Amino acid sequence: MTAYDELMAFTRDSCALGEVAGRLGWDQETMMPRGAAEQRAEEMSAMSAMLHARRTDPRVGTWLSQAEAHGAVEAAQLRLIQRSYDRAVKIPETLARDIAGETSRGQGIWAEARANDDVAAFLPALKRIIALQREKAACLAESEGPDALYDALLLDYEPGTTSAQITAMFDALRPGLVSLRERIMAAPRPEGLSGHFDETQQMAMSEQIAQAFGYDMTRGRVDKSVHPFSSGSGTDVRITTRTDPSDPFNCLYSTIHEVGHAAYEQGIDAAYALTPLGAGVSMGVHESQSRIYENQLGRSVPFTGWLFGQLRDRFGDIGIETPEAFGRAVNTLRKGYIRTEADEVQYNLHVMLRYDLERALIGGTLEVEDLEDAWNTRFEADFGYKVDKPSNGVLQDVHWSFGLFGYFPTYTLGNVYAGCLNVAMRKAVPDLDADLAQGDPSKALAWLRENIQQHGGLYEPVDLITRATGAAPDVAPLLSYLEDKFTALYDL
Amino acid sequence: MTAYDELMAFTRDSCALGEVAGRLGWDQETMMPRGAAEQRAEEMSAMSAMLHARRTDPRVGTWLSQAEAHGAVEAAQLRLIQRSYDRAVKIPETLARDIAGETSRGQGIWAEARANDDVAAFLPALKRIIALQREKAACLAESEGPDALYDALLLDYEPGTTSAQITAMFDALRPGLVSLRERIMAAPRPEGLSGHFDETQQMAMSEQIAQAFGYDMTRGRVDKSVHPFSSGSGTDVRITTRTDPSDPFNCLYSTIHEVGHAAYEQGIDAAYALTPLGAGVSMGVHESQSRIYENQLGRSVPFTGWLFGQLRDRFGDIGIETPEAFGRAVNTLRKGYIRTEADEVQYNLHVMLRYDLERALIGGTLEVEDLEDAWNTRFEADFGYKVDKPSNGVLQDVHWSFGLFGYFPTYTLGNVYAGCLNVAMRKAVPDLDADLAQGDPSKALAWLRENIQQHGGLYEPVDLITRATGAAPDVAPLLSYLEDKFTALYDL
Repeated sequence: MTAYDELMAFTRDSCALGEVAGRLGWDQETMMPRGAAEQRAEEMSAMSAMLHARRTDPRVGTWLSQAEAHGAVEAAQLRLIQRSYDRAVKIPETLARDIAGETSRGQGIWAEARANDDVAAFLPALKRIIALQREKAACLAESEGPDALYDALLLDYEPGTTSAQITAMFDALRPGLVSLRERIMAAPRPEGLSGHFDETQQMAMSEQIAQAFGYDMTRGRVDKSVHPFSSGSGTDVRITTRTDPSDPFNCLYSTIHEVGHAAYEQGIDAAYALTPLGAGVSMGVHESQSRIYENQLGRSVPFTGWLFGQLRDRFGDIGIETPEAFGRAVNTLRKGYIRTEADEVQYNLHVMLRYDLERALIGGTLEVEDLEDAWNTRFEADFGYKVDKPSNGVLQDVHWSFGLFGYFPTYTLGNVYAGCLNVAMRKAVPDLDADLAQGDPSKALAWLRENIQQHGGLYEPVDLITRATGAAPDVAPLLSYLEDKFTALYDL
Repeated sequence: MTAYDELMAFTRDSCALGEVAGRLGWDQETMMPRGAAEQRAEEMSAMSAMLHARRTDPRVGTWLSQAEAHGAVEAAQLRLIQRSYDRAVKIPETLARDIAGETSRGQGIWAEARANDDVAAFLPALKRIIALQREKAACLAESEGPDALYDALLLDYEPGTTSAQITAMFDALRPGLVSLRERIMAAPRPEGLSGHFDETQQMAMSEQIAQAFGYDMTRGRVDKSVHPFSSGSGTDVRITTRTDPSDPFNCLYSTIHEVGHAAYEQGIDAAYALTPLGAGVSMGVHESQSRIYENQLGRSVPFTGWLFGQLRDRFGDIGIETPEAFGRAVNTLRKGYIRTEADEVQYNLHVMLRYDLERALIGGTLEVEDLEDAWNTRFEADFGYKVDKPSNGVLQDVHWSFGLFGYFPTYTLGNVYAGCLNVAMRKAVPDLDADLAQGDPSKALAWLRENIQQHGGLYEPVDLITRATGAAPDVAPLLSYLEDKFTALYDL
């Protein structure tokens, strides 16, 4: 065996073990008995320590120094393994283990604190989690500036992008979003759905729509969880959704969103399975897929026109009489506290709030004790009304309890990428609206698979978007898309 | 840290990783998408190779040579770690990996072959699995006799017991079972249940009975699978069951049986969690718990009297009018092909058949190509009628497709142990029948927990049974118990 072959055999096992660890996370959110939390934390911690030990195995360093790549695919494999190795060797095993144990426990503590609206119950755990993340960032940081620690964490989620670039992007995005929100909020309020929507029927419809959006159920499954997510790569990519008997959109659009993530993983070239190329290249690109499925396709006026008929067939009277009114109901802007329930326009404002706060926490300019106040002050400034309780404020998201710092901005980055991709996709599929009006997004999905999904980790994120769209990522297409869509919907 | 502490920290992680591998097995039988089988085989294989590498880690040898035990518990931990290490270092990593991959794949091939009654489709896989097991046994064998290979495999399931001992036990058991069967079969046939038994109701009743038998649902869960099983240790011990709309006993007694296994794991001293002592000590002792729950308690005449009322309350008319007739219906001997559906008397005859065949396969005196004929011939000799199709014959059990050779005899060993324990338990709980007539096995469960379950791996199997009962294991109590019970039930 050549050094490359030996390295890839070892890496293939590591990828397989990584899949096992990921499935353990899925199990924790969907199946685990509640009394098993403490043992599960030990299991996760042992898996993390073992995976960390493999990433830093001295043989990997030796193989990397000897391996020769033949062709672009092998070169990309080596590039990703080298990056992972270079980062991993900087993190002591004890730290990797502490992070895994603390975040596994942190989740349970957060969930209980959120259920009781008790911020104080979560703060000690959050403090430990942040301290560990700062320690990790200090091991990894490559520069000295005020955002050096945050940038070091960001690379786990969005390689090749700095917080300076993200800040510039967000600054360019914000005024347009705020202005559009004001104009929409001043328009007459759209009608809302009414009725009782049987949850079993919702799950059945959810599976139907998931398959229409290309989700292969023979290589996945749909369960319920508190916070919908997608998990796994290769031939075992599972999604979760949730149901609310008074709001079928919650289930439907959670499903379409997670199918976007899952279809990305399922769409990667099978030859890359269980290798570093066999997973989505970054969280931003991942989110571009979930958001384009959910919004540019799933919330488009032609598609909602089709969905209107489906809902009426399945649930009878839904309190809305025309497809036009239904399109506005799907695309309603409301006052609200929760990021995951926000519309396309306000969603990014929720993300920007978290982005600034977590940068301050990691940068050391905001103390955990002051976080709730900072959240509430910023929220009122951005949204114009006060947070009513912590579960609608600082306790609403799972991310920080998982130790995910640097993840939030990739949501908006994904929206920006989706905006860019949408322009190119529409050019390539000129009759898309006619298909969507029949509930058929397949040509769009094929374009996304061809231009984004199949490549897995072959190209760096910005390079991938540029290849697919013919231009570097920019916020302008997203803003134009939102302007055009909502101007037409609300006759602004 | 002392060498003992370092060894135990390492071992604790290994135990946690072992739990993860076990849960992966649970997932495969209950949740896995069918398209994921090939990837799952790779994942299982990577987990097995990783666990094998940990078991043979040279540091374990060094720590073992330096560690000093303080007290009986530490001595027992070292004894079990030493045994595992001594065995593991004899098996090459490539062989461990091949076995894991082949058996993970073997399961799927077996399931399809069984569904299609196609023995030929399973034989090539079985041949590879047996070759690998023989290769493993050759690495481990400590003697030269005709059963040396089989004995080497048996030690994985029943440490301290040889096939010579088992053969002697089975030889002593068989005549009594055959004679009892003849007398019962000559008695008038008992009435059978009739009616439709709603499967959702069966699952609800199953959970109720599971909890009555001490299963802690906050540290476990009940799902359905083709073949019921129990899985996991510590605070995450899951069981599966199955339902048949015409036969509620299938679900009920599968549940009670698996609860016996699960309660054993849940009953182990929590101080032993995630250590070698923190799991059932052998398959034979495990089966003694599942069988005493299922048979000596669950199929006892007083308990079935209570169950009769429960079933009538839940399902209405069940086609049987008296508790006496119901007791006979629960304890009916039928002609049949399937081990897992067999009554207490005939069950062990099914086991003896498999035991002799698998010893011959591993010993090299029976070729895979001749297995089906050997099964069918032996079955007709033992049961007096011909096997009608492979799924009722050689393809009925999952075990061989998993590579489990040496496992089958522990089923009957468990029945023998249950017979011994029943005598001691009845002495310690003289009013047990009155409690069972109220559906309350709790005093018996407490005795089992105190005398067997809590000890985990602290004592060797035969030592454990001897401590609990005051005498070495023997077949006589099981035979007397069966004689007394069936003589009374059938008025022989």
